[in-house]
Amino acid sequence: MPRTPIEYRDASPEVRAVYDDIKRTRQVDDVNNFWKYLAHDPATLRRTWSSIKEIMTPGALDALTKEMIYVAVSASNGCEYCIASHTAAARKAGMSEAMFGELMAVVGMANETNRLVNGYRVPVDAAYG
Amino acid sequence: MPRTPIEYRDASPEVRAVYDDIKRTRQVDDVNNFWKYLAHDPATLRRTWSSIKEIMTPGALDALTKEMIYVAVSASNGCEYCIASHTAAARKAGMSEAMFGELMAVVGMANETNRLVNGYRVPVDAAYG
Amino acid sequence: MPRTPIEYRDASPEVRAVYDDIKRTRQVDDVNNFWKYLAHDPATLRRTWSSIKEIMTPGALDALTKEMIYVAVSASNGCEYCIASHTAAARKAGMSEAMFGELMAVVGMANETNRLVNGYRVPVDAAYG
Amino acid sequence: MPRTPIEYRDASPEVRAVYDDIKRTRQVDDVNNFWKYLAHDPATLRRTWSSIKEIMTPGALDALTKEMIYVAVSASNGCEYCIASHTAAARKAGMSEAMFGELMAVVGMANETNRLVNGYRVPVDAAYG
Amino acid sequence: MPRTPIEYRDASPEVRAVYDDIKRTRQVDDVNNFWKYLAHDPATLRRTWSSIKEIMTPGALDALTKEMIYVAVSASNGCEYCIASHTAAARKAGMSEAMFGELMAVVGMANETNRLVNGYRVPVDAAYG
Amino acid sequence: MPRTPIEYRDASPEVRAVYDDIKRTRQVDDVNNFWKYLAHDPATLRRTWSSIKEIMTPGALDALTKEMIYVAVSASNGCEYCIASHTAAARKAGMSEAMFGELMAVVGMANETNRLVNGYRVPVDAAYG
Repeated sequence: MPRTPIEYRDASPEVRAVYDDIKRTRQVDDVNNFWKYLAHDPATLRRTWSSIKEIMTPGALDALTKEMIYVAVSASNGCEYCIASHTAAARKAGMSEAMFGELMAVVGMANETNRLVNGYRVPVDAAYG
Repeated sequence: MPRTPIEYRDASPEVRAVYDDIKRTRQVDDVNNFWKYLAHDPATLRRTWSSIKEIMTPGALDALTKEMIYVAVSASNGCEYCIASHTAAARKAGMSEAMFGELMAVVGMANETNRLVNGYRVPVDAAYG
Repeated sequence: MPRTPIEYRDASPEVRAVYDDIKRTRQVDDVNNFWKYLAHDPATLRRTWSSIKEIMTPGALDALTKEMIYVAVSASNGCEYCIASHTAAARKAGMSEAMFGELMAVVGMANETNRLVNGYRVPVDAAYG
Repeated sequence: MPRTPIEYRDASPEVRAVYDDIKRTRQVDDVNNFWKYLAHDPATLRRTWSSIKEIMTPGALDALTKEMIYVAVSASNGCEYCIASHTAAARKAGMSEAMFGELMAVVGMANETNRLVNGYRVPVDAAYG
Repeated sequence: MPRTPIEYRDASPEVRAVYDDIKRTRQVDDVNNFWKYLAHDPATLRRTWSSIKEIMTPGALDALTKEMIYVAVSASNGCEYCIASHTAAARKAGMSEAMFGELMAVVGMANETNRLVNGYRVPVDAAYG
Repeated sequence: MPRTPIEYRDASPEVRAVYDDIKRTRQVDDVNNFWKYLAHDPATLRRTWSSIKEIMTPGALDALTKEMIYVAVSASNGCEYCIASHTAAARKAGMSEAMFGELMAVVGMANETNRLVNGYRVPVDAAYG
């Protein structure tokens, strides 16, 4: 339903506060479209940013690994926006073209064997619990 | 249709050759159910093992990262067998419980934002090409 | 394969009869693209319209709730056409922007927790049967 | 919510009429669980049977091809019940083990290349329209 | 990897605080398995509960509608745990068997037409923007 | 990341060898975009072509049936590129418009009943094993 992005100049103080935190955290001049569309629902904007910020902060996994996992899920689901934005983020975090190639190879193979398992109705080995 | 695993003792020489290569490559005593069911179609068994062996060999990405990507895809697709087997493989390759927790957090968040993007019909930013 | 819509003026009597019923039922001047493409297979056109007409008629659930459920499924599946058309229908049936925001928030969260459940392999509680 | 099958002896006349038509059409002694659970909603039972009967009748495609397509979709979606029941139906319609093996090989490959296409964001060739 | 639920008596103070808030909010004696498995990652447990609590609180949409949307997504994705738990929650919030039947009918139809749209490559009507 | 096709004139000898084999096998003057994008990862290009060539060769199933199965999976997954290219291939292999219509009808119905089965949580009949 919301079909236009909400730009900073048109945003409420509540929305601007989130935009400001995104820009500061990511060191960017403007937020990307995802946030400008979510801004139609300030509660979802705030909660989603807060969750992503917490989840994507390097911890036991580094930023690059997390971005590649994001790309893997998005490619499986066919979300073009998310593939484009998180491939860009992974690249910024150090993903080389060779790494992207291997990432996609694993994603492709996993999607293939997931369905072979389904079709052959393979039972979980006792060893895997 | 094939509803029983093909054990080594009952396997054809062609199938045994694949089982032997899996056991040697992975240093295990027996192959897991996935291969024992695929063995009903020796051509698919051979091709799938050959592809997985090539793809999962450490290259630009290490073994642990590749196994975690496999888990990410399998969790998105809801393939229980693949979640169980590749979580075990990732653990063997060094995944700690903290790493698993962060992996699942990213997988969950990516699945959420993929659908927010769909629902809000967010157009790809010019910067992402 | 069918790459062009079949307009009323070019339609067979069988197809026109369905178009007429859609226009009468929905009080619209023309049918939307979905029907004009399905018309390449008159049997599927007729059966799909007949099913949708029966299913979307208000019953135990009202029209708005049904349209929002349609949007929820379409956003999960990433079907842009269906998201666009059923969001428009939901809006016509009374969906406010606040309702759309909450709808999308639930869709996003459900997609997230579905995968957390998969990854953690959570068994169904006895209480849920 | 409905957690028990509705057996013929406990079914309403409306439900029995559908069961009778399924048994007659398929030449079986009893209907399978799918119908016994759908019977909690007689309108959906009737409509679904009527659609399946129309769709699965041999036409431009024969019964075996239709059942294999059903298996292909169900394996992609991970619906175990549907994989089991439609694999049985395909077998009954003449699917050999070699055919099942090739069916699964195509399903696996299609699922792989679908995601490679997503990840590489391959644009549709002009030749495909 | 975490294959056992974490019961209240074995939980850390951080985890117990979340369990207590769930029990208080939902007026239940114990939390369901989902939370007991997520508890292996206290940060995800806390964040997920906080998000769900915020999202599922009645607002522009009532509790029943939200639970039915949750079921719709979970049925599309094939997450059995989520189908079972949210069907129970919807029932508790007032979903009758007739409402469940209509909910499933819409979910089924949406999944069907989503794929008809894909296969026929139906372009979005200008009217839908 | 790779956002441009690699044309024959710019390709390495390794990539040209694959392009040449595709052109010879399929009797076409140029390869389609899928291969030109995969060429950014020559190992994946070679392996994917080798697998597809083996899998799509007529065997227990003929070429037309295999292409229709490919379309069925791609329509379920919503991969527009794959729907377009494999619909074209199926048509070339003899798929009439009536066959396409029945193919899509089965795909639609399978996607619907897969979700009815999920929602009603239908247990596999003993007869299906």
